Amino acid sequence: MFNKILIANRGEIALRIIRTCKEMGIKTVAVYSKADADSLHVRFADEAVCIGPPPGKDSYLKIPNIIAAAEVTNADAIHPGYGFLSENAEFSRVCAENNIKFIGASEEMISKMGDKATAKATMIAAGVPVVPGSEGLLESAEQGMSLAKEIGYPVMIKATAGGGGKGMRLIKEEKEFKKAWDSARQEAAASFGNDGMYMEKFVEEPRHVEIQIVGDSNGKACHLSERDCSIQRRHQKLIEETPSPIVSQELREKMGAAAIKGAEAIKYEGAGTVEFLVDKHGDFFFMEMNTRIQVEHPITEEVTDYDLIKEQIKVAAGEPISGRNYYPQLHSIEVRINAEDPANGFRPSPGKITNLHFPGGHGVRIDSHVYAGYTIPPYYDSMIGKLIVSAQTREEAIIKMKRALEETVIEGIKTTIPFHLKMMDDKAFRSGNFTTKYLDTWDFSVLK
Amino acid sequence: MFNKILIANRGEIALRIIRTCKEMGIKTVAVYSKADADSLHVRFADEAVCIGPPPGKDSYLKIPNIIAAAEVTNADAIHPGYGFLSENAEFSRVCAENNIKFIGASEEMISKMGDKATAKATMIAAGVPVVPGSEGLLESAEQGMSLAKEIGYPVMIKATAGGGGKGMRLIKEEKEFKKAWDSARQEAAASFGNDGMYMEKFVEEPRHVEIQIVGDSNGKACHLSERDCSIQRRHQKLIEETPSPIVSQELREKMGAAAIKGAEAIKYEGAGTVEFLVDKHGDFFFMEMNTRIQVEHPITEEVTDYDLIKEQIKVAAGEPISGRNYYPQLHSIEVRINAEDPANGFRPSPGKITNLHFPGGHGVRIDSHVYAGYTIPPYYDSMIGKLIVSAQTREEAIIKMKRALEETVIEGIKTTIPFHLKMMDDKAFRSGNFTTKYLDTWDFSVLK
Repeated sequence: MFNKILIANRGEIALRIIRTCKEMGIKTVAVYSKADADSLHVRFADEAVCIGPPPGKDSYLKIPNIIAAAEVTNADAIHPGYGFLSENAEFSRVCAENNIKFIGASEEMISKMGDKATAKATMIAAGVPVVPGSEGLLESAEQGMSLAKEIGYPVMIKATAGGGGKGMRLIKEEKEFKKAWDSARQEAAASFGNDGMYMEKFVEEPRHVEIQIVGDSNGKACHLSERDCSIQRRHQKLIEETPSPIVSQELREKMGAAAIKGAEAIKYEGAGTVEFLVDKHGDFFFMEMNTRIQVEHPITEEVTDYDLIKEQIKVAAGEPISGRNYYPQLHSIEVRINAEDPANGFRPSPGKITNLHFPGGHGVRIDSHVYAGYTIPPYYDSMIGKLIVSAQTREEAIIKMKRALEETVIEGIKTTIPFHLKMMDDKAFRSGNFTTKYLDTWDFSVLK
Repeated sequence: MFNKILIANRGEIALRIIRTCKEMGIKTVAVYSKADADSLHVRFADEAVCIGPPPGKDSYLKIPNIIAAAEVTNADAIHPGYGFLSENAEFSRVCAENNIKFIGASEEMISKMGDKATAKATMIAAGVPVVPGSEGLLESAEQGMSLAKEIGYPVMIKATAGGGGKGMRLIKEEKEFKKAWDSARQEAAASFGNDGMYMEKFVEEPRHVEIQIVGDSNGKACHLSERDCSIQRRHQKLIEETPSPIVSQELREKMGAAAIKGAEAIKYEGAGTVEFLVDKHGDFFFMEMNTRIQVEHPITEEVTDYDLIKEQIKVAAGEPISGRNYYPQLHSIEVRINAEDPANGFRPSPGKITNLHFPGGHGVRIDSHVYAGYTIPPYYDSMIGKLIVSAQTREEAIIKMKRALEETVIEGIKTTIPFHLKMMDDKAFRSGNFTTKYLDTWDFSVLK
C-alpha cells in the first residue's frame, strides 16, 4: 500500500480524498494555490505545498509544479480527483515516468476514451450499443432513407459543418425524408458553404443514466449499478440519484453487463463511469466514458456501503476487486450546492460565507470544504458542497432532501438551494418522469 | 396519522424528533424554557410555545404547562423524547385523560418497569433471566451456602442497609463463605445497626448490552439487535456501539428472543430497550427496561436503515410492526459530545460556542442542536451533540471516528472530544475487551 498520497486538486474532492487516506492510514500531501491557503484541504492534510497563484493553469494544472511537490514530499502516488488533470493523458504519463503511481487511468486509456470517435469505435468493437447512424457522410437521399429504415425512425440529419441548429432536421417517418433532406442541404450550403450531411438515430425522451464501474489490474471489472443525472442545465448536472426511476432490474443488469464488457475490452483499471442515454423504449446508447471519480459518486457509496475512493486506491496499489456487482439497497439523491444565483442565470456568486449551518440526522451526508468565515475565491468551479440524503424509497428521499435543505443556512452569498427546494416540490421531478431536456423549458423566474 | 405533534423536550432529541415529523408530513410544536429561546428546536418547529423559566421543574417538567401548550396549539400527540417526562407515569396518564396521544408507554407500563422489584418479578414470570440471588434476606450462613451452591460462585453478599461498599463481600468459593459472612455481618451491624444480609450472583467481567425492541398495539414485538454501552463513567454512558464485540449471532438471537418475550409478556407498545448485563461466560441477566427512546438509538438506525422515531410515531398511531427482526449490516459507534472538561472530573463547561465545525463525508452522522454563536445554558444536561460513524468493520469504524473527531472544531467551551480521541487509540477499547468497570481505573490525567 502507498505511504503517502499527494492530492492534485482542491475543494470538497480534495477533502474527500484526504478523509479516506486518513481512514486507510496513508499520509497525505495537499497542494494549493495562493488563493486557497485557508482551505480545509490544506488544514487537514499532513503536509501542504503551495504550487502557484490562481487561476488553475498557473497551479492546479501546472504539471511540473505538482510533480516537484510530490518529489519534495516523497509522495508515492497522486490522486487527481475530478476536473483539472484527472483526465490528462500527459499528466498520467509524466507521473509514470517519475515513478509516481497515478491513481487513475493510464495515458493510453485516457487517450482512447478522451477522443470521442476512438471511444465510440472501441465500444462498437466491444459490442456496447452506441447511437446508430451513418459512418461518415451520406452520399444521397436514397442512401439516407435506406439507412433510416435500418436504424428506425425518428432520425436526425445533421450538416457536418453545422452548429446552432442550422442544417439539422428531425425526421419522424419516411415520407418526410426527401423534403427534409433537400431543405437541410440547401440551408447548410447557404450557411456554411458545405452541404455534407450525416445521420444519427434520434433518442426519444433521453435520460442520462451512467454505470459506475471498477476495474482491477487483472483486467476484471464489476459494476455498482446506475446513477440518473437527467436533471441538467446546459449539460451541467444539478441533481443526481440512484436507483434511476426509469431503470428496471432487467435494464440494470443489461446496462451493467454492457459497461463491464466495455471496461474489460480495454482492460480498464480503476474507477470509471460509462455514460449512456436511455430512450423511452428502454434502449440505451453509449455516450462517453469518464476515466476518473465523478462528482456524484457519493450516492453510489450511500446505497452500496462501498467507499469508492478507497477502492480506487486499493486497485491502484494492485489489489484485486471482489468480483461481484453492487446493487442499491436504498434510494439516494445528491444536490450540488453551487455559489451561484439560480434566479439570475446561475451567475457565479463568490465571496465570504458569513454564516453557515449544515443539516444533520439520519440519512444525511455533507461533503463540503467550506466553513463559516470562508471566502469563496472567484477562480474556480462554483460548487461549494454536496448534500446527499438516503432513505428506503425515492419518495422518502425527496422529502428528506427537502427537510435537509430547509435546515441549511448559508449566508453572505447566493446558492442553488432555492432551486433545489423548488425541484423537491416539482411535479415532474417527483413523478420521476422527466428527460435531460426538462430544465430547457423550466421557468427559473419563479426563483426571483 | 397524527396532524400535529408537540415535542416535550429540548436539545438534540427535540430536533431529532422534529426532523422525522417533517419527513412524515406531521406539523410540530416546540415547547421551550426562557433559557432556550434561541434553540434550533424552536427555530425548526412549525410553532413554539414558551412554557416557563429554567430549570426543568419550572418548564420541561411542568405537566400543566405542557398540556396547556398542546391544547392551545391543537396538538393531537406528545413525544416526550428521553429524560424529563419520558418515563413519568403521571404524565402519560394526564395525556390520556386529555385525549392527547402520549408517544411512549402507558401509565401502567411505566409504573411496572419503573419500579425495580416489579420489573424484576415481571421478567422472572416471563422467563427472562435476571441476576439470581436470595428472595429477601438470608436467614443463616447455612442457607446462604446452600443458595450459593445452587446459583454458582462467585457470589456477592450485601448488607440490606449497606452503602459505600460497607457490609459487602465477594465470595469466590465455598470455603471462604463462613468467614466472609461473619465479618460482613459484624461490619454491617457496626456501621448501620442492622446485620440483615442478602445475596446476588456476582456477574464476572460485566458488559452492558441492551436490546432495542419495538412493540405494537397488537401485542407483537420485534427486536433490532443489541447496543454495547460498556464504556461508562459513574454509570453514565460515553461511547456506544453495535454490534457488540462480545455478542455472537447465537447470543444475539437468545438475547433478542428474551427481550421480545419480556416485551410481549407485558404487551409493550412503542420503542423500548431491555438492558442486560452479560458476563464472561456469555450468560446474560435482565437489569432494567427503558420505556422510551434512548440517547444511543442512532447507531441502531445506522446499521439497520430503520428510523426509530418514525416507528415510534407509527406504532403510537396504531400501525402494526413489520414482524421481522433487524440485524446489523454495518458497525456503528456513537460518542457523546458533552460540554464538560474530561481532564477535570468532567466538570460542566457551559458557555458560548465561538467557533463550530462538524465533520462530514461517508459514514458520518451528526445529531446536534448547537451552532456557532450558541450559548449553552447551565441548567440542563451537558450533552451538546452526538457523533455517529458507520463502516464495514469495527476497526474501520474506530478509525473513521478518529478521523471525524479530528475534523471537529468546537471553540469557546471544553468538550469530551479529547477523551474520545484517546479512547479511539486505547488498547483495551480497540481490542473490544473491556467491562463496565473499565473507566473506574482509567487514567484521566493523560488528558491534562
